[in-house]
Amino acid sequence: MKRAVVLLSGGLDSATALAIARQEGYDCHALSVAYGQRHAAELAAAQRVAQKAGVAAHQVMHVDLDAVGGSALTDPRIGVPEAPSVGIPVTYVPARNTLFLALALGWAEVLEARDIFIGVNAVDYSGYPDCRPEFIAAFEHLTRLATKAGVESGQGFHVHTPLIHLSKADIIRRGHALGVDFGATVSCYQADAEGRACGVCDSCRIRREGFAAAGLPDPTRYRPR
Amino acid sequence: MKRAVVLLSGGLDSATALAIARQEGYDCHALSVAYGQRHAAELAAAQRVAQKAGVAAHQVMHVDLDAVGGSALTDPRIGVPEAPSVGIPVTYVPARNTLFLALALGWAEVLEARDIFIGVNAVDYSGYPDCRPEFIAAFEHLTRLATKAGVESGQGFHVHTPLIHLSKADIIRRGHALGVDFGATVSCYQADAEGRACGVCDSCRIRREGFAAAGLPDPTRYRPR
Repeated sequence: MKRAVVLLSGGLDSATALAIARQEGYDCHALSVAYGQRHAAELAAAQRVAQKAGVAAHQVMHVDLDAVGGSALTDPRIGVPEAPSVGIPVTYVPARNTLFLALALGWAEVLEARDIFIGVNAVDYSGYPDCRPEFIAAFEHLTRLATKAGVESGQGFHVHTPLIHLSKADIIRRGHALGVDFGATVSCYQADAEGRACGVCDSCRIRREGFAAAGLPDPTRYRPR
Repeated sequence: MKRAVVLLSGGLDSATALAIARQEGYDCHALSVAYGQRHAAELAAAQRVAQKAGVAAHQVMHVDLDAVGGSALTDPRIGVPEAPSVGIPVTYVPARNTLFLALALGWAEVLEARDIFIGVNAVDYSGYPDCRPEFIAAFEHLTRLATKAGVESGQGFHVHTPLIHLSKADIIRRGHALGVDFGATVSCYQADAEGRACGVCDSCRIRREGFAAAGLPDPTRYRPR
């Protein structure tokens, strides 16, 4: 059984990416990153999702990105926007997916895995540069040069992005068909300690519209405002 | 004054790279990474080097790479070789420079800096894949696609590698000419808590031969064996 490292934030997309990796027959090693994010409730969600999916292992790595800040998700002085943003929003975390993929790459190499799954999406998303196919292609190219496994085999690692060209509604339909319990996931940028969503941030808005467009019940727990 | 992020391990090479960045007129923000390395004494050395160089800031970021292991530097069960290795040695840390550059990239973007310095060297080195020019070029290419700053300006970040084509003796001569206090640096993979070197690991051997070839006194403090 081939091993894969699956980046698992605890949100809807990565839970679906994990279900796809499992369906494709991978022995999944889930990786979550505690990076000082405001919505730390997503880490508890990641734990629930990993457990339900029956992963081989779930690792939570810690990186203190809040020490550098620069994002509404890592600096408490920058508020999460409660209306749609123009351009790349302040919830962008500088170099986050480069960092996440670097951590996944290192763990994959240790596991002798050559496959990494990441639930990035370039359709119904927030405009983050590191969710686009050209970024993923550049990272894949790097993996052959960056690692012992890449140099010795002449082959890089495969970064799977099964959701990248899907709409949010399509992702939800796909996850639903695979039995993902979306009620266990947390997408909100400012979820409270119990994982209840604000209902108004970009991430909540895209998620809610996705369930509506998919014609499926939205199991998200919203907190009173 | 242009800002730069300078990766600073506390070893001889990164101390010299920092001195070069300072000489080139950069306002230097030094970044060290506590990644669970066996030779944590290098972090104390980084502190000394940063202070002597007069950096604008020195940040120590924490990443628990020891949770995944896979290297003699992060897994206490894998010994540091005390004789020259064939091929890429067990002191290789999977994806380490990809991770370090990702952290530097994120901080640089927050600082509105576009320059990163890393003291990698592809001549008298240990055969690590992520110290070679082709790896650095691939990472530089990635920076334009990975970041908000890259997308908005159409320009990537510049990863400066002033030592990449120098021999260890040349690096030592260059650092010496710039006033680097090599006695403050720690290169040894298994330095003790006081920063005293073992004298027999790959890193000690390359360093000692470098001082000899440069015709300069070796200020390294070795511990009794």
